Amino acid sequence: MNKIKAVFFDIDDTLYDSTLQTEMVRRNAIKAMIEAGLDIGEEDGLEALKDIVKEFGSNYQYHFDELLKKFGYDENPRIIAAGIVAYHTTKLAYLVPFADTIPTLLALRDKGYKLGIITDGVAVKQWEKLIRLGLQHFFHAVVISEEIKKEKPDIEIFRLAAERIGCKPEETAMVGDRLDKDILGANRAGMVTIQIVKGKYRGQMPKDKEEEPNYVISSLKEILRIFRSDNLAKSGF
Amino acid sequence: MNKIKAVFFDIDDTLYDSTLQTEMVRRNAIKAMIEAGLDIGEEDGLEALKDIVKEFGSNYQYHFDELLKKFGYDENPRIIAAGIVAYHTTKLAYLVPFADTIPTLLALRDKGYKLGIITDGVAVKQWEKLIRLGLQHFFHAVVISEEIKKEKPDIEIFRLAAERIGCKPEETAMVGDRLDKDILGANRAGMVTIQIVKGKYRGQMPKDKEEEPNYVISSLKEILRIFRSDNLAKSGF
Repeated sequence: MNKIKAVFFDIDDTLYDSTLQTEMVRRNAIKAMIEAGLDIGEEDGLEALKDIVKEFGSNYQYHFDELLKKFGYDENPRIIAAGIVAYHTTKLAYLVPFADTIPTLLALRDKGYKLGIITDGVAVKQWEKLIRLGLQHFFHAVVISEEIKKEKPDIEIFRLAAERIGCKPEETAMVGDRLDKDILGANRAGMVTIQIVKGKYRGQMPKDKEEEPNYVISSLKEILRIFRSDNLAKSGF
Repeated sequence: MNKIKAVFFDIDDTLYDSTLQTEMVRRNAIKAMIEAGLDIGEEDGLEALKDIVKEFGSNYQYHFDELLKKFGYDENPRIIAAGIVAYHTTKLAYLVPFADTIPTLLALRDKGYKLGIITDGVAVKQWEKLIRLGLQHFFHAVVISEEIKKEKPDIEIFRLAAERIGCKPEETAMVGDRLDKDILGANRAGMVTIQIVKGKYRGQMPKDKEEEPNYVISSLKEILRIFRSDNLAKSGF
């Protein structure tokens, strides 16, 4: 194994708890709409909203309008606005890094590692997350699927990220929560792969050898232990 | 003059300082984009942004993209995101009622007046403002131009508002900052008109008799004095 010079991270459920954020955002939006006059049960509302997000995708603008339709309501800007306000307030409240995110990133930089982001999503939205998380200045390369028109696990997104940070893929590690996206793609590109067990994909199992990570961690700070371990020291870390 | 039973309010620059909000939002967004790498002067950026808002309208989604184009930059999601984050944070910070807004509304309700809103704009956005201002439960009728496809000074929006609140127009008063919108339309509808001298339209002069308000106030609490005055007491207040 080559000496690792750079570490790439996914954002959602890797640098912060996006699963918790999504749950709380939805629950608070439903509660606020009920408070504003939507006469439904909270759990019924949550179930319906989940179905709508599944049907229309998470970047659709009119989830709450669809929700009202589903429960037989006419357009109601007051109820929609109540949902939107709760949505934004809650989204911000949960857009905080995991407790060990910043300490780990700082420790890695102190040791001379380059840091990067490899993430799927809308470029401006992913940058908004980095800024709100206070992480916008930490990374030497930020690669977002929308900008390069390739999504994980496409091998190209990983190759390009390595190139941008000035390393060969095998000189880099990829840390992410999804076996079918982060680990599969980074394995194929020849990166060292580290699965972080967080969020809604925590129960997933590798479908085959290509989805098997080199390391499994439950918290970011464990990366430092991996990079110190005898095993890796021998192989050039 | 009939006995006044209901009082209508405009939102922007009447219930809160939207002129100050707009100025601060723009300034902080430009500052944040400069911090994120946009190499321009703050004042130049502000001027350019004002021109863009004038050209594309205030509800356009891509003001900051246009700004980058104007200064010869390629698409840059990081700089755009920095502007958007500052925009939202600052917008919220300044979405607070004038100091006497809530006390005045409460005093009017205590005296038995019905309260209403007559405002131009996108319905969900205007409701978002009322919710963020903490005013969503204060009004017996909220009439927004988008919902009824008429804008101030169209007489219909004022007539409909009176009807919805259960009064004749001449039994109501309209409080707003714009002579050419609030005062003109309410005068034509037969309402008692009160100009509040706030925000960017504070220097305006009535173009003709129809734009002349019955009363001019510089702060909402003065409404209470008007409604107590001899003059109005004699005429049935």
